[in-house]
Amino acid sequence: MTIASTDADPIGIAEKLIACPSVTPATGDVFTVLEAMLKPLGFTVDRFLTGEAPDGPVENLLAWRTTGPGPHFAFAGHLDVVPPGNGWGSDPFTPEVRGDLLYGRGAVDMKGAIAAYVAALHRLPEELPGTISLIITGDEEGAAVYGTLALMDRMAAHGLRPDLCLVGEPTSSQRLGDVIKIGRRGSVNMWINVDGVQGHVAYPHLADNPIPRLVRILSAIDAVVLDEGNDWFQASNIEITNLDVGNPTTNVIPAAAQARISIRFNNEHSGAELVDRITAIAAAEGGTVEAKISGEPFLTEPGILSGLVAGAIREVTGVEAELSTTGGTSDARFLSRLCPVVEFGLNNATMHKLDEAVALDDLRGLAEIYRLVTERALAG
Amino acid sequence: MTIASTDADPIGIAEKLIACPSVTPATGDVFTVLEAMLKPLGFTVDRFLTGEAPDGPVENLLAWRTTGPGPHFAFAGHLDVVPPGNGWGSDPFTPEVRGDLLYGRGAVDMKGAIAAYVAALHRLPEELPGTISLIITGDEEGAAVYGTLALMDRMAAHGLRPDLCLVGEPTSSQRLGDVIKIGRRGSVNMWINVDGVQGHVAYPHLADNPIPRLVRILSAIDAVVLDEGNDWFQASNIEITNLDVGNPTTNVIPAAAQARISIRFNNEHSGAELVDRITAIAAAEGGTVEAKISGEPFLTEPGILSGLVAGAIREVTGVEAELSTTGGTSDARFLSRLCPVVEFGLNNATMHKLDEAVALDDLRGLAEIYRLVTERALAG
Repeated sequence: MTIASTDADPIGIAEKLIACPSVTPATGDVFTVLEAMLKPLGFTVDRFLTGEAPDGPVENLLAWRTTGPGPHFAFAGHLDVVPPGNGWGSDPFTPEVRGDLLYGRGAVDMKGAIAAYVAALHRLPEELPGTISLIITGDEEGAAVYGTLALMDRMAAHGLRPDLCLVGEPTSSQRLGDVIKIGRRGSVNMWINVDGVQGHVAYPHLADNPIPRLVRILSAIDAVVLDEGNDWFQASNIEITNLDVGNPTTNVIPAAAQARISIRFNNEHSGAELVDRITAIAAAEGGTVEAKISGEPFLTEPGILSGLVAGAIREVTGVEAELSTTGGTSDARFLSRLCPVVEFGLNNATMHKLDEAVALDDLRGLAEIYRLVTERALAG
Repeated sequence: MTIASTDADPIGIAEKLIACPSVTPATGDVFTVLEAMLKPLGFTVDRFLTGEAPDGPVENLLAWRTTGPGPHFAFAGHLDVVPPGNGWGSDPFTPEVRGDLLYGRGAVDMKGAIAAYVAALHRLPEELPGTISLIITGDEEGAAVYGTLALMDRMAAHGLRPDLCLVGEPTSSQRLGDVIKIGRRGSVNMWINVDGVQGHVAYPHLADNPIPRLVRILSAIDAVVLDEGNDWFQASNIEITNLDVGNPTTNVIPAAAQARISIRFNNEHSGAELVDRITAIAAAEGGTVEAKISGEPFLTEPGILSGLVAGAIREVTGVEAELSTTGGTSDARFLSRLCPVVEFGLNNATMHKLDEAVALDDLRGLAEIYRLVTERALAG
C-alpha cells in the first residue's frame, strides 16, 4: 500500500528547505528541518559537524531505516547552496511560486531533489524490506573536504554500506529525464613555476628571463593530445587557465613566471600520471609543478542501476534518458568507491544563477521517479 | 689665464646640490642653488616649469654665456634623482664625506657631474670666445616628457644651437674615464593583447581560450633574430617582460590574456618598423598590439667630439676610453637631433642604489676633464 500524506508534497517540502539560508559551508536550521521530516518516517538520524574555518565547520546528516533483510539503497545530496548574488526578482531565501515555477536559491541544486526524495519516501510501500539511507552534506559547493568523505567514514562506523547509490544532482538538460550521469571526468589543477634571475632589460646577459622557458613549456603542453575519448567519455582536455608574472616595470626582466593549467580527464588516466607527465615537460625547461587533484574519474558502466533509473524516467515522463559522463565533478566521485552510483535530478538550466527556479511539475515528476527507483532497488 | 676660486671646488659644489632633495620630477631649491652659482660666472639663466601631475610639474634650467664669436659647446644633464629607498648608512640628502667618498643621492647620477662642470667653468680661460650653455632638466629619471625636449624648444626660441654637446651621465664603469657613450640603442615597449571567450573548463567547446594563442605569438617572437649587431652596436634584443591574465578561478577559461615585451634596438631599426613587425606576428593569432616608443637609437660616429673627450681623459687619468653604445636610454637621444653628442661622466657602480657615493678624486678629475674638453671645443 502507498502512504498518502499532506507532508508528501514535494513543493511544500522544497519550500521549507529553501526558507533556511544555507550558503556553503552549511550548518544548522536546514538540517533541523530535514531531520524533523525523516524521524516520523522511521529514520535514525546522525548529525555531526566537521572541519574548521575557512572551509568549515560543515554539518553532515546521515539517516537510515532498515525494514528487514534486503538491499541497501542510498540517496546522496547536499543542502548547502552557492551564494545568491544580487539582482533576484524575489528574495532568494523566501520560496515563491510564480506561475508554474518555484523560485529560490537551491530550488534545483539541490534542495528540490532532496524534497522530491522525502516526498517519495512518504509514498513507498511500508512492507518493503531492506535499508534506505540518506547521505546529506553541507559541503558540496565549497571545498568538499569535510562533507561526503566524512559521511563515508560515519557510514563505515555504523556498518552501513549501500548496494546502489543515486546522487540527486541536477543532471537534466533540456527536460526532466533527458540525462543521467553514469560517470564523471577527473580533475586536476597544476601550477607551473619557472625561476630566473631578475635584471635590467638593457643588460640581458646579466639576467635569466624565465618567460621564454615558460612559453616553451606551455607550447609543449598545448601540443599534448591525451586521448581521443572512448565509448563513455569525451577526450581528456588541458586548458591553460592563468599566466602570472606580476612585473609592473617595463625595463625589468622578472625573476619568476607562473602558469596554471586545468585538466579534465577520463578513465584512461589517473591524476598522478598526469602530474608526472606535466612535471617532466616542465622540468625540461627548468620548471617545477605543484598539483592539486580535485577528483579521479569514475564510471558506473551501464547496468542495473542506470537501467532502473532510465526505466523509471521513461515510465513517468516518456523521455529516453541519455547516459552521460560530461560536466564537472560531483560527490559521486567519492561514493563510487562504495558501490555503483549514478546521478539524476532536476533541470540544471538555472543552477547557480540568479532567479534559480524549478518547474512544479518537475518536482512532482522527480518524486515519482525517485519512488519507483527506490521501490525497485529494494525489490532487488 | 685660469681663474682659481674657493667656489671652484667640485666637492663643495656637489654637497650644496645633494643637500637639496630633488626626487624626480624636480623643481625649486636645487635649481635656485645652481642658478646662484652660474650668474656670477656671467651666465644668462632661464628657468621654467612644464607639465602637470602626475609626471610634472618639472623645472628646467637653460643657461648660456657668449664671450665672442666662436663654437657653441653645450653641457647637458639633470638635477632630479631617483627615490633614495630605505636603509642608507647616512641621510641620503645630507651630503657626508666618509674616507675618500662623498655620500648622497645624486652623488654620481648626476649632481656630481654638474658640480664638476661648474667647477670647470671657474677654471676656464676668460678670454676664450664662443658660447657655452648648460641644458639642465628636472625630468630625466621619470617620464622624461617635460624635460630635455622642452629645453630644446626653449633653446630654439633663444636662437641657441650647439655645435657639440656633452651629456654628463655616469658612463664610467670600473674607473673614471674607461667608457664614453657615443650612441644609445632605441627602446620600445609593446603590450600584446589576445581576446577570447570566457567559459567553464569543463565545457571548453563553449569558450575560446586566448592563452594558447598568446603562447604561439610569444613563441614566434622568441624566435625572431633582429640582427647580429654591427661595428658600433650590439645585437638588438627582445625581452618578454610580463604575462598577465589575472584569473583567480581554477575552473574558468579566461576572456583575455596579455603580455608585455621590451625591445632595445640598434641603428639598423626604427621603433615604428619594430611595432609593425610585432603587430603582424600578433595579428596572425588574432592579437593586437599597443606600443610606446621610448627612444630611437642614435650614434655619433667616432670623430672630433669623442676624440676631444678621449684625449682629455687620457691626459688627466691615463685611461684609454672605450667608445660604447651599451646600456639604457638617456636624454642624449633627444639632443643628438641638434648636433654630435657623446656622454661621459662618473663611475656608475652605485647609481640608483643605497649609499650612492662618489670618490673625491673622481670629482676632481672629472672637473679637469670637463675643463679641457670645453676649452678645446671652444678653441675649435
